[in-house]
Amino acid sequence: MPDPLRVTVWSEFRHEKKNPKVAAIYPDGIHGAIAAGLAEHGIAARTATLDETECGLSAAVLAETDVLTWWGHLAHKEVPDEVAERVVQRVWDGMGLVVLHSGHHSKPFRRLMGTSCDLSWREGDDHERVWVVNPGHPIAADLPDYFELGSEEMYGEFFDVPQPDELVLVSWFSGGEVFRSGMCYSRGAGRVFYFRPGHETFPTYLDANVRRVIANGVRWAAPTGGARRFRNRAVPPEELRG
Amino acid sequence: MPDPLRVTVWSEFRHEKKNPKVAAIYPDGIHGAIAAGLAEHGIAARTATLDETECGLSAAVLAETDVLTWWGHLAHKEVPDEVAERVVQRVWDGMGLVVLHSGHHSKPFRRLMGTSCDLSWREGDDHERVWVVNPGHPIAADLPDYFELGSEEMYGEFFDVPQPDELVLVSWFSGGEVFRSGMCYSRGAGRVFYFRPGHETFPTYLDANVRRVIANGVRWAAPTGGARRFRNRAVPPEELRG
Amino acid sequence: MPDPLRVTVWSEFRHEKKNPKVAAIYPDGIHGAIAAGLAEHGIAARTATLDETECGLSAAVLAETDVLTWWGHLAHKEVPDEVAERVVQRVWDGMGLVVLHSGHHSKPFRRLMGTSCDLSWREGDDHERVWVVNPGHPIAADLPDYFELGSEEMYGEFFDVPQPDELVLVSWFSGGEVFRSGMCYSRGAGRVFYFRPGHETFPTYLDANVRRVIANGVRWAAPTGGARRFRNRAVPPEELRG
Amino acid sequence: MPDPLRVTVWSEFRHEKKNPKVAAIYPDGIHGAIAAGLAEHGIAARTATLDETECGLSAAVLAETDVLTWWGHLAHKEVPDEVAERVVQRVWDGMGLVVLHSGHHSKPFRRLMGTSCDLSWREGDDHERVWVVNPGHPIAADLPDYFELGSEEMYGEFFDVPQPDELVLVSWFSGGEVFRSGMCYSRGAGRVFYFRPGHETFPTYLDANVRRVIANGVRWAAPTGGARRFRNRAVPPEELRG
Repeated sequence: MPDPLRVTVWSEFRHEKKNPKVAAIYPDGIHGAIAAGLAEHGIAARTATLDETECGLSAAVLAETDVLTWWGHLAHKEVPDEVAERVVQRVWDGMGLVVLHSGHHSKPFRRLMGTSCDLSWREGDDHERVWVVNPGHPIAADLPDYFELGSEEMYGEFFDVPQPDELVLVSWFSGGEVFRSGMCYSRGAGRVFYFRPGHETFPTYLDANVRRVIANGVRWAAPTGGARRFRNRAVPPEELRG
Repeated sequence: MPDPLRVTVWSEFRHEKKNPKVAAIYPDGIHGAIAAGLAEHGIAARTATLDETECGLSAAVLAETDVLTWWGHLAHKEVPDEVAERVVQRVWDGMGLVVLHSGHHSKPFRRLMGTSCDLSWREGDDHERVWVVNPGHPIAADLPDYFELGSEEMYGEFFDVPQPDELVLVSWFSGGEVFRSGMCYSRGAGRVFYFRPGHETFPTYLDANVRRVIANGVRWAAPTGGARRFRNRAVPPEELRG
Repeated sequence: MPDPLRVTVWSEFRHEKKNPKVAAIYPDGIHGAIAAGLAEHGIAARTATLDETECGLSAAVLAETDVLTWWGHLAHKEVPDEVAERVVQRVWDGMGLVVLHSGHHSKPFRRLMGTSCDLSWREGDDHERVWVVNPGHPIAADLPDYFELGSEEMYGEFFDVPQPDELVLVSWFSGGEVFRSGMCYSRGAGRVFYFRPGHETFPTYLDANVRRVIANGVRWAAPTGGARRFRNRAVPPEELRG
Repeated sequence: MPDPLRVTVWSEFRHEKKNPKVAAIYPDGIHGAIAAGLAEHGIAARTATLDETECGLSAAVLAETDVLTWWGHLAHKEVPDEVAERVVQRVWDGMGLVVLHSGHHSKPFRRLMGTSCDLSWREGDDHERVWVVNPGHPIAADLPDYFELGSEEMYGEFFDVPQPDELVLVSWFSGGEVFRSGMCYSRGAGRVFYFRPGHETFPTYLDANVRRVIANGVRWAAPTGGARRFRNRAVPPEELRG
């Protein structure tokens, strides 16, 4: 039985059109690779990209989305404010959001964090080890103690985000840096998971462990049907039950 | 399809034998009522009680238990240290533990918290409102903004436990107190949920909302299959992948 | 020796001009009462109000402010976006921010939280008990187990803010509600404390315990001289020390 | 003016007697070097060691100690249970505890954490970089973005401790591991800081940054005079203020 989760995988889909190296790694786009990874874990997903109408994220699409994954890099500013705000509002209303790699600087993520989301980085030949620091967390399900990515862009601390509700993964880089790579937040009735790996010039989204983390993260971020959040309302005095 | 979770509902089963008032409310024991509540949510559970051999918690039983729920009150000291330690070790290895009401002073809970777990209390005619403060949390699934218990024993702050990883529920008492009533912790590879209501002289475990919280808590605490925890091990230098 | 902290107490200063009842309680303005309370604890403060040039919060004033306290209610929208953004940036750079009562809906607080900051409320004759749930926290210093406010506006959960790094105070209201009343956050290099009490029609800021909490909160939020945060910077590979 | 904090620096003081290499690095003992580091930061400290009567930690000494620092390695089991329990009780009552390096396996720390406190390790020629991940935290005061230790024993994840209230430092090791190296907890009315570096065969406690972190940690862990914690007490119904 397929997972009933309704997932939308969003990506800029620009690097793949401009840079033959990226296109060779991701012939179906980064979004295509992410969706294929979710399919391996029994999660069907639609995709949406920046150059579609309303970035492919109309109110109708978001209303039918339980969890949105977000990959962006070059064109954060081209996402209209109203689309970003629509995503934020849906998170507050319960939609899950999984933010990947350079999505740290996307409008919805920065808006939801309340910080600059700045970090340090280096493009080069670093390799990365991703360590599990919360083995009982559902996002760590079926992971080894750590997994390794042969080549990745380095992201280093200080990563200017709020302290997470739960820290699940920490990365080590061969050049001497560490990074909090898997972090869980709640915002309103929704849940947000940030996951670091995924530079466009490396086949990161083909990696089995990376795909597993994203699938686990999507399931963790799914709406829980929790108590519905009310908007700033006046409450009349009420008779207490005896 | 029944939930494949293997749940054991543990209770002292003493009040019910001594106090006709308690027996009238819980003819099948408090454990029986808790197990019946789980059954309403599709979770089958075995029960175990203090006066069984090894408190009904042999190594074999615990090895086959994914989540243990714990209700105790009068006889915390009669639980042998080795049984308490066995429970603690299983939590560290990934078993979920749902601690109910006066279980706050049980050996396993105190051992896992590292604090006195003291609180203030009052038996009387308080009533209680349980408020959701984390509506996106799975333990809040399908709850109203708050639910009310007409009569309950009061538990008040300061509740001497560590700050939880996630605070889900806060109680209001008519006598003027508040209490952090639903709290989530991780310990080793296991997860612990504390839930306040459940004095033996009130039909609390027959309440639909209370039953829902316990079922949600059991599902939340279930083992995730996360990265296996290693015990203090020496690590040889290793060749890094290039 | 006076505390060397440079504190600015900000307030709308509108109710006091319009409503004789408020003016009678706060003849020197709400800001005046807050500043007087800080003075009792050895903390000198300047004040600033909405109708001053740049809301009294020029870049020069903020640059000389270690901790800013904020009270606003009617006129959140009249604070220009650039002033709000300036406050946010100063928090990211290390300035402390203590947000009081209806400041929950102020632009800087909402921006720093990343949520709606909505809540439920009731004006009436509630009274409030404020309970300490983290007695070892510096903001709880010299407080009793709880303190009581005879009349206050009710604020109730769900309060739509992120889970705090540390929860210090929880309020009980006679009408049946609870509220997380004292919460600590870090944002960038700065620290934010939200404290609930303070409706303009009650003499809340004359209360000794309230004044103590605000003084403790100001000291807690003071800049620590921590590692300076860097903005998104490229890092060259570096020789590791041998 | 000297800091009025009353600090006790505790150490096993065994390696220094047995191993000439350790004695050469720490001619006044590890405790002597730690106390000397605190003195550089204006904090006077007494010392106490394992082979003194009652481990130098009589009830009288503990009653006069605001913050205790702990270094142990070989002889955790030689600390009598009653001494360990006395330390735990004093933490619950408000004493600060700074646990260093191999103190992760000490009786008081394990008891306060409620977990195994296991980790992985490697003695060799690793070097370590300690990164600040919470620059606004008082324990990060006056630290650079990271500091480096040329040679240290490796400690690696998964470190089996509860998720901290605040994570301040994360270490990078040349052999490929990461470690949460600076973590803050509250337990009862007391505060606990764990800080990783300090293998006995390296001059770690002579390092200026390490000394600064320990001094900052001692100040952070100092008793706050917060609301006194009450032990499990019955509360009579009380008249609410009108």
